[in-house]
Amino acid sequence: MQRTHKRISISALLLCGLLPLSAQASNLLVNNNISHQEVLDAQQAWGEALIKISQTYEQKGHAEAKKLAKQVLDQAYGYQQGAVLFKPTLASGEQTFRTEVDGALSYFVGSDKQYPQDSGFALKGWKEYSFDNAAVYINGDVALTMGHVKLIDNKGKQTLVDKSWAFKKDEQGQLRIVLHHSSLPFQP
Amino acid sequence: MQRTHKRISISALLLCGLLPLSAQASNLLVNNNISHQEVLDAQQAWGEALIKISQTYEQKGHAEAKKLAKQVLDQAYGYQQGAVLFKPTLASGEQTFRTEVDGALSYFVGSDKQYPQDSGFALKGWKEYSFDNAAVYINGDVALTMGHVKLIDNKGKQTLVDKSWAFKKDEQGQLRIVLHHSSLPFQP
Amino acid sequence: MQRTHKRISISALLLCGLLPLSAQASNLLVNNNISHQEVLDAQQAWGEALIKISQTYEQKGHAEAKKLAKQVLDQAYGYQQGAVLFKPTLASGEQTFRTEVDGALSYFVGSDKQYPQDSGFALKGWKEYSFDNAAVYINGDVALTMGHVKLIDNKGKQTLVDKSWAFKKDEQGQLRIVLHHSSLPFQP
Amino acid sequence: MQRTHKRISISALLLCGLLPLSAQASNLLVNNNISHQEVLDAQQAWGEALIKISQTYEQKGHAEAKKLAKQVLDQAYGYQQGAVLFKPTLASGEQTFRTEVDGALSYFVGSDKQYPQDSGFALKGWKEYSFDNAAVYINGDVALTMGHVKLIDNKGKQTLVDKSWAFKKDEQGQLRIVLHHSSLPFQP
Repeated sequence: MQRTHKRISISALLLCGLLPLSAQASNLLVNNNISHQEVLDAQQAWGEALIKISQTYEQKGHAEAKKLAKQVLDQAYGYQQGAVLFKPTLASGEQTFRTEVDGALSYFVGSDKQYPQDSGFALKGWKEYSFDNAAVYINGDVALTMGHVKLIDNKGKQTLVDKSWAFKKDEQGQLRIVLHHSSLPFQP
Repeated sequence: MQRTHKRISISALLLCGLLPLSAQASNLLVNNNISHQEVLDAQQAWGEALIKISQTYEQKGHAEAKKLAKQVLDQAYGYQQGAVLFKPTLASGEQTFRTEVDGALSYFVGSDKQYPQDSGFALKGWKEYSFDNAAVYINGDVALTMGHVKLIDNKGKQTLVDKSWAFKKDEQGQLRIVLHHSSLPFQP
Repeated sequence: MQRTHKRISISALLLCGLLPLSAQASNLLVNNNISHQEVLDAQQAWGEALIKISQTYEQKGHAEAKKLAKQVLDQAYGYQQGAVLFKPTLASGEQTFRTEVDGALSYFVGSDKQYPQDSGFALKGWKEYSFDNAAVYINGDVALTMGHVKLIDNKGKQTLVDKSWAFKKDEQGQLRIVLHHSSLPFQP
Repeated sequence: MQRTHKRISISALLLCGLLPLSAQASNLLVNNNISHQEVLDAQQAWGEALIKISQTYEQKGHAEAKKLAKQVLDQAYGYQQGAVLFKPTLASGEQTFRTEVDGALSYFVGSDKQYPQDSGFALKGWKEYSFDNAAVYINGDVALTMGHVKLIDNKGKQTLVDKSWAFKKDEQGQLRIVLHHSSLPFQP
C-alpha cells in the first residue's frame, strides 16, 4: 500500500505503559523519511548498476547496454521528476552539468553526437566498486552523502573519485539521485 | 514535466548582478515545497467538492454522488499513499477515526453497513462554504491549517466547525489531505 | 554536539561489505528527522506535564502552577518559534484558537482577564493520563498524530478527548507542538 | 518573532473570496521553507565573505583574517549543528573531506600543523566573484545548487570551479552550508 505502512506491535505499546482504549484501533504508521540504511543500499545499488552496464556492454553490445543505462537513469535518478544536478567526473566545458536525461545517458554510454566529448563512462570494463562515506546528512526525504568511491576495471586499474550525492525518496519508496557531483582527486 | 520546473528569467539573474558564464546554461529550478497560495486553493477546492457532491446527490441520486465522493477522496486525500488521520465532525465511538478510505467514504455518503452511524455528511444539501484560518504552518511539502469552516445548506441553516488540516504535496503537485480533524464548537 | 551526531560502528560498515579506504575517515551521521519513538515520548511527556501542573497547584498554589505551565509551554510548544495552531478542548467563540502563548497559558491555568471563559484546564486535579493513537504520520522533522487521550482526575472521573497533534523537532532535538486540536467526542 | 511571521493582508483574503468570520482572527503564517531568493542571497554572501577575508588579510594580517574566517564558518556553515560535508577545491588525500570546523578553517586560512597541505585558499587576493547555477533544487528547508563559480584575484587571474552546495535554513532563518563540493574542471 505504501512504503512504511505497518501496524505498531502491541508489545511496543505495552512497553510505553499504554492501555489501548479500543481493541479495534488500527495503530497505523506512515513514515516518509529516508533511513540511513536506505541511503547505504542506494549507494550500493548505484555501483552494482554501473558494473552491470559494463558487463552488458561486453556480453551483449552497445544497444543493450544503452537500454539498461536508460532504465537505470529512469529508476535511480530523478530526471522524470525534474532537473537533476549532475556533474559527472569526466564532463567539462559547456557540457559540464548534465541536468537533462539525454546528457546523463550520453555520459554513461556515449555515441551521442550532441555530446562529442563522451566516450561512455559505464563502458570502461568496471568490475569492482566500493564507497566510503566521510559523512551522511539526512533531512526528511532527502539525504546527502560525501566520500570516496573506488572503481576497479577488468585490468585491475583503480579509479578513485570524490563524490557527493543527494537522494530523494519518492512516493513508492524508491531513492532517486537528485544531485551527483563527482570529481577526480585534486593533484597538489 | 514536474510541478515547478521553470527557467529563471534572465532579468532576474541580471538583477542579482550575475553574468552568466555560458549562454547554454539552463538555469533550472525544482521546488517541492508547498506555497501558501496552494494551501488556500486546496482549502477552497475542498468546499467546492463538498457542495458538488451535495448537488450531484440532489440532481443525479446516491450512486452518482458516491462515485464523485470516491473520486474526491482519491484525489484530495492521501489514502492511496497510506493511512489518513481523519476525525470527521459527526463520527464517534469506536469509529471516531477514519484512517481507511472506506470509513471516509461512508462518512461522506453513508449507506455502508459497516458504519451504521453515518447518514452521509456530504448529502445534507450544502450550498455555501467559507473558511477562516486562524493560522497556517508550512514545513516543506506539508502545510498545517487551523480555523473555522462555515457551511450553509439549502434552507439557509449555518453550521460552523473548528477544523484542522494537514496537506501533503504529492509528486504531481497535488495537495492531499493527510490529517483532517473537524469538531463542533465547544458549548460552554 | 547535536541531536544525532554519531560515529557509525565499524561492524555496521563491515556488514555492508565496505572496505574503508582510509582509517581516518570519520563516518559521521547527521539526522534531523523525527523518529516514531520520539513522538511517543513527546506524547507521554505532555500528559506527565499536565499532571505535574495539577499537583503543583494542589501542593503549592496557583502562582507556582502558572510558573510551571509557562515553562511547559516554552519547552514543549512552538510559541517562541512563531504561531501555534492550538484549539483547546474547552475553548469557544472568538477565543477558540490560541495561536499566541498568552492564550494558551490562560487556557491551562486561568486567571487572565483577557480570557474570561478560562477556568484553568490544568488545575482540575488530573491524576492519570493515557493516549491511544489511531495513526501517526511522519514527514521529515514533523510528525502528526491523531487518537484518543484519556484523563482521570483525583475523584476517578474520566475525560476522553479526540486529539490531533503536530510535533516539530527543533535544532536541539526537542519536539515542539505546533498544532494541537482537542475536542470532546461527538454526541450522536 | 520568527522568520516569516506575518499577517495575511485582508485584500489577499478578499481576493480569495473569503469573508472573515471574526474580525479578531489573527491570520498568522509560519513558513519554515527556503525560498529561491534566499538561496541566491546565500550564494552571493559566500563570495562576498571570501573576498572580505582576502582583503582583511592584506590590510590587517593573518590573525584578523583567521578571526573573520572563523566567524564566517560559524555563521554560514552548519558545523555547530553537526558534521558538514565539505570537499574543498584544493584538498586531497586523507584530508580531502573537511567534516570538522578545524579542517575547514585551515583550508581557508592555513597555518595549521594538522593540515600541512593547506596554504589558505581565502588568502589568495580574491577581488571578484560570480556564480552561475546550472540548476537549483529546493526541498523544504534544504536547497541544493550546482554550477560554476568564477573567482578573479588582484592580478586579474581567473579561477573557475565546479561547485555544489546544500543549504539548510536554521531556526533563525539563516541559511547554513551543510554540503560543499568544489572541484577544478576536468581537463580532457
